[in-house]
Amino acid sequence: MLFDFIYYNPTKIYFGKNSLSYLKEELKKYGKKVLLAYGFSSIKKIGLYSEVIQILEDSGKEVFDFPGIMPNPTYKKMMEGAKIVKDNDIDLILAVGGGSVIDCAKAISVSAYSKDDPWNKYWIGRKEVDNKIVPVASILTLAATGSEANGGSVITNEELKKKKGRVFSPEVYPKFSILNPLYTYSLPLYQTMSGIFDIFSHFMEQYFSGEDDNVSDYLLEGAMRSLIHSTEAIMVNSEDYEARSNIMWLSTIALNTMLGVSKPQDWEVHAIGHQISAYTLCAHGMSLSSISPSYYLYTYKYGLEKFKRFAINVFNIQEEGKSSDEIAREGIETLKDYIKKYNMVSSIKELGVNEEMIPLIAKSTDKGGAYKTLTEEDIINILRDSYN
Amino acid sequence: MLFDFIYYNPTKIYFGKNSLSYLKEELKKYGKKVLLAYGFSSIKKIGLYSEVIQILEDSGKEVFDFPGIMPNPTYKKMMEGAKIVKDNDIDLILAVGGGSVIDCAKAISVSAYSKDDPWNKYWIGRKEVDNKIVPVASILTLAATGSEANGGSVITNEELKKKKGRVFSPEVYPKFSILNPLYTYSLPLYQTMSGIFDIFSHFMEQYFSGEDDNVSDYLLEGAMRSLIHSTEAIMVNSEDYEARSNIMWLSTIALNTMLGVSKPQDWEVHAIGHQISAYTLCAHGMSLSSISPSYYLYTYKYGLEKFKRFAINVFNIQEEGKSSDEIAREGIETLKDYIKKYNMVSSIKELGVNEEMIPLIAKSTDKGGAYKTLTEEDIINILRDSYN
Repeated sequence: MLFDFIYYNPTKIYFGKNSLSYLKEELKKYGKKVLLAYGFSSIKKIGLYSEVIQILEDSGKEVFDFPGIMPNPTYKKMMEGAKIVKDNDIDLILAVGGGSVIDCAKAISVSAYSKDDPWNKYWIGRKEVDNKIVPVASILTLAATGSEANGGSVITNEELKKKKGRVFSPEVYPKFSILNPLYTYSLPLYQTMSGIFDIFSHFMEQYFSGEDDNVSDYLLEGAMRSLIHSTEAIMVNSEDYEARSNIMWLSTIALNTMLGVSKPQDWEVHAIGHQISAYTLCAHGMSLSSISPSYYLYTYKYGLEKFKRFAINVFNIQEEGKSSDEIAREGIETLKDYIKKYNMVSSIKELGVNEEMIPLIAKSTDKGGAYKTLTEEDIINILRDSYN
Repeated sequence: MLFDFIYYNPTKIYFGKNSLSYLKEELKKYGKKVLLAYGFSSIKKIGLYSEVIQILEDSGKEVFDFPGIMPNPTYKKMMEGAKIVKDNDIDLILAVGGGSVIDCAKAISVSAYSKDDPWNKYWIGRKEVDNKIVPVASILTLAATGSEANGGSVITNEELKKKKGRVFSPEVYPKFSILNPLYTYSLPLYQTMSGIFDIFSHFMEQYFSGEDDNVSDYLLEGAMRSLIHSTEAIMVNSEDYEARSNIMWLSTIALNTMLGVSKPQDWEVHAIGHQISAYTLCAHGMSLSSISPSYYLYTYKYGLEKFKRFAINVFNIQEEGKSSDEIAREGIETLKDYIKKYNMVSSIKELGVNEEMIPLIAKSTDKGGAYKTLTEEDIINILRDSYN
């Protein structure tokens, strides 16, 4: 049965080869002071940094450079940005990069004027934002998290070894996001594939939950089929514009909340993956690919019909002469093959996890699960199954 | 290849059994004077009219009653509403009903303060709106057109015997829309099925175009599969909340522009259907069901691969031992079976078209078509094929 829900997504998307040309018009809506948030040298290598600086200058903006946002943005880094925003009365935070940079920009936005400690208030305490926020906008260079069109913000508290996501309300969503598939051409294969599995996982986290006849499940099946098709296409040619476009738009569709809003969702793969990243600082998508097959093999019996449906509708597994259990397992095995075929990581050891970390990761993971609520022991078992 | 596009949809959706409870909060954002636009007695029969009046009164609003909006809202009716809005300085147009009522509300919104004749300026001349507009909101009682979350407004000029749609920019979209599937329970089967085929046609108009590998086509296949599944469910039980919910949410998803924005689209079935309605005043969805199979059988050879894909992915047609042509035809024949099975209209004669009208309808139809641009003669042939 469809949930009662509110769907509201006011982010304006500019998509395509000429999408950057809209930046100047958008900038007119905001004040003079812009925090330019980004990661490291990649946006300079592809020439995007100088293009953006030029547009900001032509628009008469005062630019506050804020580089160095890391793949798993830390609480400390976010607080540095918040200080700059508050001290300088920043009017717009422009995030140029992937999900980490955009997540960090949103975190800065809600934290700059918070009187209480933002980590405890917003990420642990899940409180509604009641202080001034600063508008965020984004120029996306990596298709993965969907952060370009939602309120999600995942932050890593290094001191506490805790990585935690929070979804803020639409006021915090990027006001506009510029999506140009060409920016993703120069990404190393490892990052591209990490991003793709992140998207895949977003679909699965929303799909593997509930037993109703929900329209979203049909749409999610279509989305996963499209993603699989485009993954193959960019393995053949990493500069296949059509495939890069599909993947970039899928990253947005996956988490602009439309597909998930009417149904229960899971997100336990993300919960475990976050703690793997907290201990190893590994790429987010790879933390998800390393444990997804083990997690699903561990829990599929509790949601058998849905896993069977996944096998048939997403991976075209033939039903004839097979039990539901066999069909469901074959679907998960095919997911495992997909992970290996496209050079995604299939072992947590490869990500830097060692024997000693396993109980610590399990203990610190938020316990949940759509078809089976996991215990600490369950998580240890899943991690061990993903170890080799 | 994905088009360059801008996607921006600021309509806030309240969905579910308790969605009307949000109306009071939303009303606070607007001034005192509300034009209450609706059709005939159906919203009174289900008790919705008195509920809405109560909430408006509790909110201190001055209500201007505007009943009698007909299934194919006329230019004359729309101009009546526009006069009331201008004369009384209305602050909000609240449309309670199906797509016709919401389309008419948007037409009133853009026309009230237009200095030029709105029909010529906006529907024929396709000009950008440059006059004051009045905010529109909706409470949906019929799942069909998707008007609850877009800028579409189809108006019939009775004098000219021309029905014409126009898509306005996001400023004209409903500010909020309240979607309660329970409101659709009491609809006669004929209207329910007409609405369902309208939704189906919206998916097909976006699907049957282009030859690329576009993510939207995968999503559209999922959407059509879900719609077929839910059609069967409400034939079994017209008060199946799950199915009614799926259908209502599908009506919004079909035309909130997200699925179509990245690809070419068709809309020639709608163009012909509009002129059938202009001559007969028949239900919109039934005009589409009556001609879709003939139109697709007439043109499928020009987009053979897409029609083959449709047959396989939407209607599960088995491929073995068949040519592409056979598979494609079987898909369209199955669509015809679907139309007949669920009591949708499959003959234009049944809608009131007579022999004399056929050339007039063909002449007055806007000529287009995704895989084949239709001539007047083509349209005559298609109409004749749909006549019996």
